Amino acid sequence: MSFQLSEQSTAAIEASERIHGALAGDIRDLVDVAIRTRVDPDRVAEASELIRRATQVLSEEAEDGPAGVHFNTEGRSWNWGNAVVGIRNAIAPPVVLQWGDDGIVRSEVDLGVAYEGPPGCVHGGVSALVLDHLMGETASAAHTRLTVTGTLTLRYERPLPLGRVRMQAQITEEVGRKVTVTAQISSVDNDLPAVTAHGLFIVPSWAIESSVPADIGSLD
Amino acid sequence: MSFQLSEQSTAAIEASERIHGALAGDIRDLVDVAIRTRVDPDRVAEASELIRRATQVLSEEAEDGPAGVHFNTEGRSWNWGNAVVGIRNAIAPPVVLQWGDDGIVRSEVDLGVAYEGPPGCVHGGVSALVLDHLMGETASAAHTRLTVTGTLTLRYERPLPLGRVRMQAQITEEVGRKVTVTAQISSVDNDLPAVTAHGLFIVPSWAIESSVPADIGSLD
Repeated sequence: MSFQLSEQSTAAIEASERIHGALAGDIRDLVDVAIRTRVDPDRVAEASELIRRATQVLSEEAEDGPAGVHFNTEGRSWNWGNAVVGIRNAIAPPVVLQWGDDGIVRSEVDLGVAYEGPPGCVHGGVSALVLDHLMGETASAAHTRLTVTGTLTLRYERPLPLGRVRMQAQITEEVGRKVTVTAQISSVDNDLPAVTAHGLFIVPSWAIESSVPADIGSLD
Repeated sequence: MSFQLSEQSTAAIEASERIHGALAGDIRDLVDVAIRTRVDPDRVAEASELIRRATQVLSEEAEDGPAGVHFNTEGRSWNWGNAVVGIRNAIAPPVVLQWGDDGIVRSEVDLGVAYEGPPGCVHGGVSALVLDHLMGETASAAHTRLTVTGTLTLRYERPLPLGRVRMQAQITEEVGRKVTVTAQISSVDNDLPAVTAHGLFIVPSWAIESSVPADIGSLD
């Protein structure tokens, strides 16, 4: 596990994020319709052929391994492959965090048909996935320290319908290198907590003396 | 939340799963390379154009809403949009469960670059996602009853490298309508538990008298 220093400027990174973020958005639309489509097998085959051509084009030059986590000398970091926030990752909704002045980290995101578990509802494990990430970022105190997840406890209160959801997390206790975070996720339609979560995050002893820049934040 | 009775035969369902499973596989390859690609912006635009055409083809006839959970009169059920096991869902790895005679439910699956959290490692929330699903299915006792997740506690023991992972779950206690399940996930390379989990699942009182067929299983 390592963080990589990059020579790229923040402006170059942001230009790249616009291009590849749009590509990932197009792939998200495809993931969504592939679940819902009712076209005939020959039309499915036609779509598969187009998809394989797109894969071929993108494979002409590609990294062998995962995207990793990078940072530059301007203090900008990026984790394009992250399963929750990765700008290039069509699996990620992606979640975008709002850091409040009140110490609460918030996010709203659309969880469409690809995030289904019970009929018409968000998969309980998807709630765990996005809350884990939000809580890890919260524990990192706006990216001023590096943390790892120790334990995470989720309480399922009620079904969460697919659609727009709202979540929030906050630090409730800090003792030594242990940071406690609580969080919840709800539908924007009723704001009743569907899942509440309690997490214990650890600042690894190696991170205190580490050369990893503080703004890398949570290891989620 | 509802289960839908379908007139389709099991043979027709399995034929459809072959076609749409292949489509989802092609999309998974695309998701993967979109994270890794280094091609120029004009090649990205070319790929995007192909992807949008594929989306257009599949959109010619499509359901408006999620895939839901269906069953037929032969006792076959399917949840094609499920975020963990859905055969049509490119977000799902997909996980395939092995029901052991020893009461242990096992699964092995490849978690590639789209499941990244810490550099080179599986996102902690992805471990939570797949374990939640495995444990819910385990609680359903090979689909002989319907269960919902009450609480889920995850303990993060060590980083889990991207790649092939192994997981297993088993029922450790049953008291009334409460079912306790424990589980773990590890890399196939070392088999050391990366995340251990403890879950409390509930058989809802409404499910005991329900008309929902027992083989629908877990509500994850």
